[in-house]
Amino acid sequence: MTYNENNHPFDNATRLTGESDNYHGHTSECYANMVGPFGGIIAATLLRAIFDHSARQGDPLALTVNFVAPIIDGDFDIATKLVRTNRSTQHWSIELSQQDLIAATATVVFASRRKTWSSTESRFPSTPEAKEGVRVSGEVFPSWLKSYDIRLIQGGIPPYLSIENEEAFVNSVTLQWVRDEPRRSMDFLSLTAICDAFFPRIYIRRNKFVSAGTISFTVYFHVDATTLSAIGDKAVLGYARANRFYNNYFDQTAEVWTPDGELLATSSQVVYFKE
Amino acid sequence: MTYNENNHPFDNATRLTGESDNYHGHTSECYANMVGPFGGIIAATLLRAIFDHSARQGDPLALTVNFVAPIIDGDFDIATKLVRTNRSTQHWSIELSQQDLIAATATVVFASRRKTWSSTESRFPSTPEAKEGVRVSGEVFPSWLKSYDIRLIQGGIPPYLSIENEEAFVNSVTLQWVRDEPRRSMDFLSLTAICDAFFPRIYIRRNKFVSAGTISFTVYFHVDATTLSAIGDKAVLGYARANRFYNNYFDQTAEVWTPDGELLATSSQVVYFKE
Repeated sequence: MTYNENNHPFDNATRLTGESDNYHGHTSECYANMVGPFGGIIAATLLRAIFDHSARQGDPLALTVNFVAPIIDGDFDIATKLVRTNRSTQHWSIELSQQDLIAATATVVFASRRKTWSSTESRFPSTPEAKEGVRVSGEVFPSWLKSYDIRLIQGGIPPYLSIENEEAFVNSVTLQWVRDEPRRSMDFLSLTAICDAFFPRIYIRRNKFVSAGTISFTVYFHVDATTLSAIGDKAVLGYARANRFYNNYFDQTAEVWTPDGELLATSSQVVYFKE
Repeated sequence: MTYNENNHPFDNATRLTGESDNYHGHTSECYANMVGPFGGIIAATLLRAIFDHSARQGDPLALTVNFVAPIIDGDFDIATKLVRTNRSTQHWSIELSQQDLIAATATVVFASRRKTWSSTESRFPSTPEAKEGVRVSGEVFPSWLKSYDIRLIQGGIPPYLSIENEEAFVNSVTLQWVRDEPRRSMDFLSLTAICDAFFPRIYIRRNKFVSAGTISFTVYFHVDATTLSAIGDKAVLGYARANRFYNNYFDQTAEVWTPDGELLATSSQVVYFKE
């Protein structure tokens, strides 16, 4: 079976009906997390609402999603609001509701780019030894993991990483190759979800499962649609680390790179944990 | 003259009238930028609206501000919306308007913390040589710079840094001591503004002035109110760098530390530039 945007599980999971400022969607078993859906698929779905909107101009530049309340498996509504269209940027606000209660809010900036002086200042993460990584088993829980081919180079936890995690208790860095499973061509929606397709940093740092959930998630897109589509279905390199864990909350900073060293997106999130 | 929360320029600049979900403020000459107000003072003012709100619970955890349109010197209105109060988090949406047109939007999460395992994973920036830094002149433009005592250790541009900028054209890193001028005790509002009190990264990297303006700005707070108030009016260490400059937009990542090595906040922003 070949997959395309009509039948790929990612496209099914993010598909919306509706138009203008009101959309309707449904959570997908393929992207279920421990409780409710994987945050990355919700972020991608909120972004898709703007792509589905007839007034949208440009490519995504910045997305922030706040997870306000647990999202329950089932139907949800999305309301979009075009705040302002400028010459080169467009600002949107979004709310996701279930049974008329807001469960997530988001703001998105779309932008048009012109050619300017450009430079990537961050360096491609060093991937010395186990360059191809160790594949996260296909039989794992939660099920969203089965919708990705993730190959860990550094920073996993048992049973997701069978090699020794030498850095456990020292730092929370993860380095991983990741692509959609089954394969799917990269676009802004899948890139958004991939920015969140990491284990919570507290798992890595403590080398065990800890109750955790994302509160706020931000993605900055550093490419345009043409660059993204040239990637096709190749795996991309994800790097994530924490700056601080402090009394119930920690942050995560992430980068997503092409194998050729192009920085596609940077991302940050703040996460609740209880230990 | 001694300053306190009743007459300090920062408190005057962020002061609001109004109550419930509707507030009114006025831009301040002390925090004027090249065009309109310094973004950091607007972010602090939006956060202050929630502190002024009778329903607020907890300390700020995450703030995202989107600069939708240029803010004009003069009056503005702020509308707040309490999206949801959970057991340990509270979610707010905010809009700043001038003449009924939205000029900025924001989302804020407030949270209560309980004692947990904690760890700061980022390392305090290395401040080898010029440990005390070179003071940015008091006669500079724009005027918001006069409201801070900024001492650059690395990454300035003429005339703001009289020592040689050896890293110019190589990277965009800035390292600086910063405090309010006149002195003022640290709180979440001043910390928010200090997260934005850096020159745009493009200035540093290109070693010249370039037209630039923040589009979206995010702060994660890594401390509680008690820790912050213990800092008093001491200078804090700010570190900023860019990940990528690409076709009209670049990002900035920042950290703010106490002299004792406590990480107070991490911040990111995406900025328009034209060159």
